[in-house]
Amino acid sequence: MQETNRTEIATLGEFGLIKHLTKDIQLKNQETRYGVGDDAAVLEFKDKEVLVTTDLLMEGVHFDLVYTPLKHLGYKSAIVNFSDIYAMNGTPKQITVSIALSKRFCIEDLEQFYEGLKLACEVHQVDIVGGDTTSSLTGLAISITCIGEAEKDKVVYRNGAHDTDLICVSGDLGGAYMGLQLLEREKTVFQGEKEVHPDFSGKEYILGRQLKPEARKDIIEKLAEAGIKPTSMMDISDGLSSELMHICSQSNTGCRIYEERIPIDYQTAVMAEELNMNVTTCALNGGEDYELLFTVPLTAHEQISTIEGIRIIGYITRPELGCALITRDNQEFELKAQGWNPLKEK
Amino acid sequence: MQETNRTEIATLGEFGLIKHLTKDIQLKNQETRYGVGDDAAVLEFKDKEVLVTTDLLMEGVHFDLVYTPLKHLGYKSAIVNFSDIYAMNGTPKQITVSIALSKRFCIEDLEQFYEGLKLACEVHQVDIVGGDTTSSLTGLAISITCIGEAEKDKVVYRNGAHDTDLICVSGDLGGAYMGLQLLEREKTVFQGEKEVHPDFSGKEYILGRQLKPEARKDIIEKLAEAGIKPTSMMDISDGLSSELMHICSQSNTGCRIYEERIPIDYQTAVMAEELNMNVTTCALNGGEDYELLFTVPLTAHEQISTIEGIRIIGYITRPELGCALITRDNQEFELKAQGWNPLKEK
Repeated sequence: MQETNRTEIATLGEFGLIKHLTKDIQLKNQETRYGVGDDAAVLEFKDKEVLVTTDLLMEGVHFDLVYTPLKHLGYKSAIVNFSDIYAMNGTPKQITVSIALSKRFCIEDLEQFYEGLKLACEVHQVDIVGGDTTSSLTGLAISITCIGEAEKDKVVYRNGAHDTDLICVSGDLGGAYMGLQLLEREKTVFQGEKEVHPDFSGKEYILGRQLKPEARKDIIEKLAEAGIKPTSMMDISDGLSSELMHICSQSNTGCRIYEERIPIDYQTAVMAEELNMNVTTCALNGGEDYELLFTVPLTAHEQISTIEGIRIIGYITRPELGCALITRDNQEFELKAQGWNPLKEK
Repeated sequence: MQETNRTEIATLGEFGLIKHLTKDIQLKNQETRYGVGDDAAVLEFKDKEVLVTTDLLMEGVHFDLVYTPLKHLGYKSAIVNFSDIYAMNGTPKQITVSIALSKRFCIEDLEQFYEGLKLACEVHQVDIVGGDTTSSLTGLAISITCIGEAEKDKVVYRNGAHDTDLICVSGDLGGAYMGLQLLEREKTVFQGEKEVHPDFSGKEYILGRQLKPEARKDIIEKLAEAGIKPTSMMDISDGLSSELMHICSQSNTGCRIYEERIPIDYQTAVMAEELNMNVTTCALNGGEDYELLFTVPLTAHEQISTIEGIRIIGYITRPELGCALITRDNQEFELKAQGWNPLKEK
């Protein structure tokens, strides 16, 4: 939070604040008929399917303001929702943004949050069309709902994977989790004297993966250009294992993935080594990478292999074969969903 | 919260919990193509306008669990969103429900919350199509987004009021606020010994107005039957004064309303008397009644007068005349937006 300029939110009140934060919003999409300022936003999608996804982020559970700049938080809050729409093979078009905040936040804090939000919306051509701004007794709560569109026959669900389909992922995995571990380790430094700065050189990539993730619009576009419609797809927010098991359970299939094929960045591997963690475990269960996990028919093998940024990591099997990882030394281990679960016993 | 059966949420985890709460949901609307269970819900509205509204409710700010049963809270959380869709002259079709909860809540608590939610959805024929269930370090946070539809030429905004239009409200005002005052007064009793029960006889109506409000679908239907399309409309959540000033400012008009024409229930008046409060002030600024405030052309006077449950309370003027209340003794007082503002200085 900013320390220098501090304007109390009470000076504007709810309606004044909303006006202040949304006054320069220009609507980008013709699907947005009316945005902020009435009881509801008015949208128009003609013959398209309408996609709706929502996320609720709570301070202390989903983010730690000790090391998360509010602008990054705004950016990430929007991105995680866009990612869900891309994971349906759709295009995000609008978001509503609800925030509850306690007295320790000032108008300048919210301006920063909105700056990140607007930047994400700019990059992905999304309109902010409404929301709710209210108070909280304790921390910050952020709820974003994203509305997207897709051609009727283009929507991709989790339940369409078939035996022999290839399992693909975009980008690399485990980086966001390693970034989080690094930030948590250095947290004491952030909280301590201001002159001491942790040395993050050589770790910029994993920090960026945690603090400023991106949604893979580019992958959706490349697949469309190649004329490939995945048979199933979802985004990796909770971890590869967990998501793959969702696809297999909803598609009634099994799967085999190869440890050696899981894409891992150099910085992720170095950080895991430094922390004495198994990097494959991090990539399987880390979460928050917001990469796309999808399946394509075996016949698309050649075509998919030529697309940059996509890696084939295994294949779909009949359900009775279960879900397993094949290790570098050719052993099979049953996959377990050990991904991030905010409701499990700590 | 229930004291008897208590099953910890950790026994189910996030996905188990969502499955448990949503397993018996039957989709009601053909506009809902796919509900809970994927990255996003899939909806289809053909030639209709799509309406989107959202609300974020925080424990201790918007509700007090000392006297609010979780089933009622579920019902109300849904209703306040439906009300916003009706206020656009639309029909609510789907909601997404996000909840963040701390460890003091158990599965039985959430079942009760969902019971109320499902009841509201049953009454208004709305589908629960998604959401997010996560944890909170402190209280309960509820974020609901409602999607509705309307014929293209039927959407009613706040900005369409014209000079000489009649100002109408449905139902009666101030009751929800009086119910809240009563509950707050008796709160100490709730918190005290279990054998002591406050005597609420003769106050059932105002308690119901606070704890179990209704959204005025019936009024929207009656207006449609009569062939009347309001020139402007919104729902009264923050108080009549505040809402009327929104309509006038967005429509660039003034207004005159008559104190003697503001509809007030007998129980509301009695409670105000008991608490030594001015009942007109309560009706003007109380909020949470979720009645509809709308304007119709002067030519609709005769027709609107025959519709039960609608009262004409004044008329729209040119902007330079400002917004004023005409009291019983024929004095003019400028209206002030003193409605509920969660962000103002306490």
